[in-house]
Amino acid sequence: MTATPADFEARLRQIGADQYHDKHPFHHLLHSGGCTPDQVRAWVINRFYYQASIPVKDAAFMSRVEDPALRRAWRSRIEDHDGTADNEGGIMRWLRLADAVGLDRDYVASKEGVLPATKFAVDAYVRFVRDKTLLEAVAASLTELFAPKIHAARIEGLLANYAFADDSSLSYFRNRLTEAPKDVAFGLAWVLDHADTDEKQDAAAAALVFKTNVLWAQLDAIHAAYVTPARIPPGGWQPGTHLRPGVK
Amino acid sequence: MTATPADFEARLRQIGADQYHDKHPFHHLLHSGGCTPDQVRAWVINRFYYQASIPVKDAAFMSRVEDPALRRAWRSRIEDHDGTADNEGGIMRWLRLADAVGLDRDYVASKEGVLPATKFAVDAYVRFVRDKTLLEAVAASLTELFAPKIHAARIEGLLANYAFADDSSLSYFRNRLTEAPKDVAFGLAWVLDHADTDEKQDAAAAALVFKTNVLWAQLDAIHAAYVTPARIPPGGWQPGTHLRPGVK
Repeated sequence: MTATPADFEARLRQIGADQYHDKHPFHHLLHSGGCTPDQVRAWVINRFYYQASIPVKDAAFMSRVEDPALRRAWRSRIEDHDGTADNEGGIMRWLRLADAVGLDRDYVASKEGVLPATKFAVDAYVRFVRDKTLLEAVAASLTELFAPKIHAARIEGLLANYAFADDSSLSYFRNRLTEAPKDVAFGLAWVLDHADTDEKQDAAAAALVFKTNVLWAQLDAIHAAYVTPARIPPGGWQPGTHLRPGVK
Repeated sequence: MTATPADFEARLRQIGADQYHDKHPFHHLLHSGGCTPDQVRAWVINRFYYQASIPVKDAAFMSRVEDPALRRAWRSRIEDHDGTADNEGGIMRWLRLADAVGLDRDYVASKEGVLPATKFAVDAYVRFVRDKTLLEAVAASLTELFAPKIHAARIEGLLANYAFADDSSLSYFRNRLTEAPKDVAFGLAWVLDHADTDEKQDAAAAALVFKTNVLWAQLDAIHAAYVTPARIPPGGWQPGTHLRPGVK
C-alpha cells in the first residue's frame, strides 16, 4: 500500500538523518575551527562551482515545465542566486566570502582550480534534473529540508572560529536561512502531492539519496585533496596561490 | 601557427606523461601487492562500472556519426566489450576477475555498491561523448595511448603479488594489450587529421585532459574510501560483504 504523505515525508526526512553531508568529517573540521586557511579556501573555491551551477540546474528544470504556475513558483530560486535589481544574489555573496578568506575573486569566479571530482558530482546533478522526471528533479532539491540547520551551525561555527567571518562574508548563509525554507516548503508539498504511487515514492526517495551523494562526494573530494594525507589531483588549486594582494 | 601533426601528437603524449593514472598512489599500491584483498575487491567493483559504461559511450559516439566508414571502424570497440559469437568480451572477462577475487559476480554485475564518485566520473565521460564535438569525443579516447603500458605492468604486478591472479582472471588485461593499440592507432590518426586549427588542437588536448581526470578521479574515490584512513561514503560497498560462498 502506498505510504501516506505523512509517512512518506518521514521516509524522506530519514534520508537526511542518515546521510546528509552534516555527517561528513570535513563539515565538523570546518565548523569547529579545525581547518587551516588554505583548507577553508579550498572549500570556498570548490563550493563556488556548486553555487554557480544551481541556477543553471533551476533553468534546466524550468525548461521542462509546461505549467506557468509551477515555473513562476520556481523562478525565485534563480533570482535568489543570480540576483535582482535589489538583491546582489547568492553567487555574488559567495564571492564576497571568497574575498574575505583572502582569495582572488576573479580566480574563484573563473572556476579554474575546481577539483575534477567536484565538477563531476555537480554536473551529475544538473544532468539529473535535465534528464529525469519532474518529480525526481523536485525531490532531489529537498536536501534544502536539512540545509537551514547546517547553515545556522555554519554561521555559528565560522563566527566563533575564524577571523574572516563577519556579517558581510557570511551573508550567503544568512540569506539561505530564509530562502531555503520558502523553497523547500513548496517543493515538499509538491512532491508529497505528486508521489502518489509506490513506484513514484521510491523514485523520489532515490532522487533524494542521489542528491545527498552529490553533496557528500563534494566534501569527500575536498577532504581527500586537502586534508592530511592531502593528495591534490592534477588541475586542482594549489594552496597558497591565487590570493588577494597582501594576503599570505 | 598551428602545430604540425607530429608536434601535436607530442603535446597529447605529454598529457599522459604528466597525469595519466599510472601516477596515482593506488596504482602503485595495487601493482606492488600492497592492497588487501578487500582493497582489490573495491577496485574490481568500481572499475566494473567503467568497463560496463564503455560500450554505452561508444554507442553514444556512433549515434552521432553520419559517416558509415567511421561507424564501421568504431564498431569493434563495442564488440570487444560486449562480446561476439567467438569472443566473450571484456565485460564478461571482468566478471571473471570478480569471481577470482572472491566476489559474488551477480553483485558486481548489479553495480550496487559502486561509489557515487565513481558513477559521477564515469557518467561525466559518457555525457561528454554525447554532448561534445566528434573531435573531442575521439580525443578523449586517446588515453588508450597510455593504457598498454599500464596493462602490461598490471599483469606483471598482479601475477607476482596475488594468489588470485592467473591467465583466466587476468584475461581482460591480456586482451586489451592487442585491442587498445588497434583502437588508438585509428583514433590518433583521426585526431591528428581533424585537429587542423589551433582551436581544434586546444579542444582535443582539453578533451584528453578531461579524460585523464575521469580516470584519476576513479582511483581517488577508491583510495579515499578504502585506503587508510578509509572513509566509505553512504551506499559504498562494505568490505567483507557480497563474497562468493566459502570465501572470507
